[in-house]
Amino acid sequence: MANDKIYGRSFSVTRADRERLNGHPSGVIWLTGLSGAGKSTLADGLERKLHRLGKRTYVLDGDNVRHGLSKDLDFTDAGRDENIRRVAEVAKLMMDGGLIVITAFISPFRKEREMARTLIGPENFFEVYLSTPLAVCEHRDPKGLYKLARAGRIQRMTGITSAYEIPEHPAFIADSSSETVDHTSERLLASLGWICRGSGAGIDD
Amino acid sequence: MANDKIYGRSFSVTRADRERLNGHPSGVIWLTGLSGAGKSTLADGLERKLHRLGKRTYVLDGDNVRHGLSKDLDFTDAGRDENIRRVAEVAKLMMDGGLIVITAFISPFRKEREMARTLIGPENFFEVYLSTPLAVCEHRDPKGLYKLARAGRIQRMTGITSAYEIPEHPAFIADSSSETVDHTSERLLASLGWICRGSGAGIDD
Repeated sequence: MANDKIYGRSFSVTRADRERLNGHPSGVIWLTGLSGAGKSTLADGLERKLHRLGKRTYVLDGDNVRHGLSKDLDFTDAGRDENIRRVAEVAKLMMDGGLIVITAFISPFRKEREMARTLIGPENFFEVYLSTPLAVCEHRDPKGLYKLARAGRIQRMTGITSAYEIPEHPAFIADSSSETVDHTSERLLASLGWICRGSGAGIDD
Repeated sequence: MANDKIYGRSFSVTRADRERLNGHPSGVIWLTGLSGAGKSTLADGLERKLHRLGKRTYVLDGDNVRHGLSKDLDFTDAGRDENIRRVAEVAKLMMDGGLIVITAFISPFRKEREMARTLIGPENFFEVYLSTPLAVCEHRDPKGLYKLARAGRIQRMTGITSAYEIPEHPAFIADSSSETVDHTSERLLASLGWICRGSGAGIDD
């Protein structure tokens, strides 16, 4: 969490200053997994726990990005790539702003997750893989997308007609079909040691 | 600062929760004016004062947006419009995240500033007009752009070959050729009464 000169700007208030004011480091927790795997539910559960601990948080997901910043984009490969690029850029800005950002996007391709990791900085990027089996996700089908995909009415549905590339070295794995969101959130929180680091200690300008 | 259901999401932690945790409301301070008018300098001066008062802040400007989120955009009218749209969307997300966002972009056209105001919500949008005269801005020429424009090497330079539409009802006006940044920042801070409102009072879920 040391590099404040993310953009080479000359502004006086730095990320480290904001982290000190907040009393905790900032960073990005990147959730990835199939539609219906439980990303938004976990994002919400984790944010609630972090907020109760006095941490400054924000969740970026399809609801607040696709209807706003990315509303000009379609769901082709190019559109999805650009959406993930923008999410990574916004997460980076918010992290610079002192927030712990939780992103909840399928982000099925390794190369886009690696792009995000590189952009945000590996030391700030915590990859969480929701490994919930496809059969469970498809049964849940919270947005009705699997049904549409099976009926041939959606192109490039991840898990059905488009690949999901499993993370090779995620920092954390959870399967929402075999664990409650409360338990997963607790485990995840415990694994996020850097978040619980107090203000000041180890943070340099 | 009342409407938390900006996106109709089902997330538990709301903007009002974040404002309570921070002890101050969030919002957007939108600086507009010619290149060289003093926008970035004022953004920096104001952010320093806000930070010293314990407010959570962030500055969006060309340096951290044009090199990242908007690096795919050019400087045609369409590219500039889209840049301002993205800035407004990101400012809105950051405001939802509890931050006082200061934006420093020329944003020369009324319609783009009105787009931003509508998107962000008039009650959250504080328009600041840097009225520094063109002659002073051109003399300063901090990026060398006026010289290039006069030499015909830059198309559509605001103030030279492209219009700057003066805000009709800005919330605050300052001329950096006749006032120090410290004095302007103090005046601006004093005019931002809502920022100094304590936590809790008047904030509803």
